Amino acid sequence: MSDNRPIGVFDSGLGGLTVVREMQKAMPDESIVYFGDTGRVPYGTKSRDTIKLYAKQDIEFLLKNNVKAIVAACGTVSSVALPEITALPVPIEGVVVPSAIAAVRKTRNGKIGVIGTSATINSGAYRSEIKARMPEAEIFETACPLFVPIVEAGWINRDDEIAILTAKRYLAPLKEKGVDTLILGCTHFPLLSDIIGDVMGEGVTLIDTGYEAAHYVLDMLDKKGLKSDGTQSKNQFFVSDRVDDFSSMASILLGKDISDALRKASVDTL
Amino acid sequence: MSDNRPIGVFDSGLGGLTVVREMQKAMPDESIVYFGDTGRVPYGTKSRDTIKLYAKQDIEFLLKNNVKAIVAACGTVSSVALPEITALPVPIEGVVVPSAIAAVRKTRNGKIGVIGTSATINSGAYRSEIKARMPEAEIFETACPLFVPIVEAGWINRDDEIAILTAKRYLAPLKEKGVDTLILGCTHFPLLSDIIGDVMGEGVTLIDTGYEAAHYVLDMLDKKGLKSDGTQSKNQFFVSDRVDDFSSMASILLGKDISDALRKASVDTL
Repeated sequence: MSDNRPIGVFDSGLGGLTVVREMQKAMPDESIVYFGDTGRVPYGTKSRDTIKLYAKQDIEFLLKNNVKAIVAACGTVSSVALPEITALPVPIEGVVVPSAIAAVRKTRNGKIGVIGTSATINSGAYRSEIKARMPEAEIFETACPLFVPIVEAGWINRDDEIAILTAKRYLAPLKEKGVDTLILGCTHFPLLSDIIGDVMGEGVTLIDTGYEAAHYVLDMLDKKGLKSDGTQSKNQFFVSDRVDDFSSMASILLGKDISDALRKASVDTL
Repeated sequence: MSDNRPIGVFDSGLGGLTVVREMQKAMPDESIVYFGDTGRVPYGTKSRDTIKLYAKQDIEFLLKNNVKAIVAACGTVSSVALPEITALPVPIEGVVVPSAIAAVRKTRNGKIGVIGTSATINSGAYRSEIKARMPEAEIFETACPLFVPIVEAGWINRDDEIAILTAKRYLAPLKEKGVDTLILGCTHFPLLSDIIGDVMGEGVTLIDTGYEAAHYVLDMLDKKGLKSDGTQSKNQFFVSDRVDDFSSMASILLGKDISDALRKASVDTL
């Protein structure tokens, strides 16, 4: 049994391309339709109601593109909106549950750190998904809003003074608590994983939410008999703002050039 | 002759409250209707077409509130959209022209620096308004996107290591060129003026676009006989996202608490 329809992936912007990158590694036969809401990015600083409204519109767009499953690559949407989005005609998964499962599997001392945008941290979504699986876990959360513009400025070299100082300021409380596992709960953060790893120290396992989500979805497609047979693999990338302004950032995040495949979807018709 | 209708002020978010603060100092008798598009903030990273569309919707909202004049407090809108917005029933002014006039008046060596969001700098708006008034001026521009989240994180103390290092990295090229006047072309930047002043050194005059815009508008109202007689002064503040999440930030930017006066205007009806 196979299903050659594409998998839909959406995000507040282009950060979700780090999830697509992991999906392409994990399931190269699958086609992906990506929607990045670059016209309204970021979601992480907006209210719950607004995030829910935007998420519903993004999902509607993907459903019109005949997807067989949907991945909310956005940490903010996964945390804030997903628990209340139900009754869709296709399975949907975010980045929170797969990473919570991985963190519980990997921690040895039960002390788990979570970093993300303010909205992700305020939602408490990682906390409750971890607690549901490991009630005795101690969870320490910190919002790291500066990490996103630092990545977008390209200040991601392992020796970048500003990135390192910012990481030290944000991560000091988590280090003090002795966490041995740290969830990078925002799509942009894997690009700072060297610096975050250096600051946290060798004994701390970093959980890449994109990697965990990709493998979770692969498993889900397998169980539901929804895997592609690979004969029609083709990716499409849509953004809600102008394409030109974003293709170089897209290349950084995805790890390859997609200028030719990137198209604009009108904000008005969302 | 007097006109007691309010002045409309809009911005991509709450940064424009620094302009309102200067307006309230310069013209305490005037009423202000403020619209902050917190549901779609920031504009500075979005494309020209999207910024123009949003600006038109923001202006429409203010016109419905019976304003006698409009101030585009947003550096991005002033730079990118305002030159093409014409045929309004009321006068409109941004932050670019007043600051260009001030910079030309204050420079001694003709070397003027401009800092702002990426969209403001890419627009070249300050450059062309300065050149129109001082063709021999040498203008040096730098986008400083990290300054906005640094202000919003509250990392604005004069001795903040990260803010200082970021300012040094951004401003080094302007310092090297020997600018003697620097336009702070983004509403958030006045909150970093101590640090920016320290990095640039004593001989450099900082131009606060909010201050310049407020005095320019006051002069314009006077000339057109549109000043209020002060009998109905009352301010209203609208945002397009949830009020709760923004009232503390609003207090920082405006310099006083406006929780009671802050209301939500639906994004849908924009």
